[in-house]
Amino acid sequence: MIRKDDLLNGNFIFQDTEGFLFGMDAVLLAHYPVLRRCDNVLDLCTGNGAVPLIMEPAGRSMGVHFTGLEIQKSAVSLAEKSVAYNGLGESIRIIEGDVKEAARLLPAASFSLVTVNPPYMKGGHGLAGESEARTIARHEVLLTLADVAREGSRMLKMHGRLAMVHRPERLPEIFAELSKNHLEPKRMRLVYPTADKAPNMVLIEAVKGGNPGLKIDPPLVVYNEDRSYTEELKRIYGIKEV
Amino acid sequence: MIRKDDLLNGNFIFQDTEGFLFGMDAVLLAHYPVLRRCDNVLDLCTGNGAVPLIMEPAGRSMGVHFTGLEIQKSAVSLAEKSVAYNGLGESIRIIEGDVKEAARLLPAASFSLVTVNPPYMKGGHGLAGESEARTIARHEVLLTLADVAREGSRMLKMHGRLAMVHRPERLPEIFAELSKNHLEPKRMRLVYPTADKAPNMVLIEAVKGGNPGLKIDPPLVVYNEDRSYTEELKRIYGIKEV
Repeated sequence: MIRKDDLLNGNFIFQDTEGFLFGMDAVLLAHYPVLRRCDNVLDLCTGNGAVPLIMEPAGRSMGVHFTGLEIQKSAVSLAEKSVAYNGLGESIRIIEGDVKEAARLLPAASFSLVTVNPPYMKGGHGLAGESEARTIARHEVLLTLADVAREGSRMLKMHGRLAMVHRPERLPEIFAELSKNHLEPKRMRLVYPTADKAPNMVLIEAVKGGNPGLKIDPPLVVYNEDRSYTEELKRIYGIKEV
Repeated sequence: MIRKDDLLNGNFIFQDTEGFLFGMDAVLLAHYPVLRRCDNVLDLCTGNGAVPLIMEPAGRSMGVHFTGLEIQKSAVSLAEKSVAYNGLGESIRIIEGDVKEAARLLPAASFSLVTVNPPYMKGGHGLAGESEARTIARHEVLLTLADVAREGSRMLKMHGRLAMVHRPERLPEIFAELSKNHLEPKRMRLVYPTADKAPNMVLIEAVKGGNPGLKIDPPLVVYNEDRSYTEELKRIYGIKEV
């Protein structure tokens, strides 16, 4: 079933309830990089376009342009439907294609910011009963971390930033792949479900050709002890207090 | 001036107020690894022996043995004085020497746990007015991160653990040096001064020849909002409530 969701930032997004629904990781990723004037943003693995649709209002007065690249045709159609519905054809374009072919589809070394919420899980096996769309989005079936770092770097201008959300357990491998591709981690934030739990997401911003020196941000805590959202999460989600 | 401090764990430590005084990093490092029966522990850059003196009571009933290696003669004398004062000659030995020569001074591949609180800062310059002892302890004058990872790995048995405390800004480099020396990061904890601040220390445990897969622990927060120690910090320091 195709559903229309309110992103609470002025934009709406179409989602297929049988397909891959964007999650908190996409929302937190979209809020992690600080947009700059005239940023040219490439979102790899854009799916139904959640990341550019969430980021777009923040870049509206700064001439920021977004390109979303997605391999799954059904997700591309949804993303294009959302772009048209919101009247954003001037600022977001969606391209169907494989991230590994990015430099054939789009000009290399031309983006100032690459965002990516890649498949997290190693190996080609989805869960039993999981749809193909979800398996592709979650597992490294069509795209590995090494591919993401290599192609992300290739598409970035010198000193461009790559912002990624991933799982903390793969942090050493993430740093190693970034480093191989001249992407120096400069900012990192761990996302803790509650203040006393292990983190389940990590946000990383790396700079192509940057100097060593990582700034780790304060913890991002999702829930208070009573399971309500923390103030910071409400702010990110655009949830207004009643 | 030589001062005798109570470690609140049954042991006392002698410190030279003109030399390098151990800090919270040594205390947190000493509490990070979980000791196992018959662990053979090597503390690199042991200084006045703070790390083994803090860890020792936890290993007492498990036949754990500690060796501390330190290059500065004055610190070695203090460490030996503390070992003798506490009657720990059977369980802690202090060796004077350079970490880079560890495998000449002690049997390589014979330790099950290496602990290290190395100099954090790059470059050979101390602060103006800083004593030589402090400069050597804080700056990579005599020992670099690459040396620590290489020698730590050399001294460990296969599947032995290396526990280190360091600065978060050097995390990508730390992972890279560990990886070069077949030390796989398995556990990590960030130490945040308060819950809303950037972390200023990182605790890492790596396993020689381990499989990839990092477990990041919940945040370790030092101070409550009112600047009192958190319950966890009080527990680590052995501070009893009045």
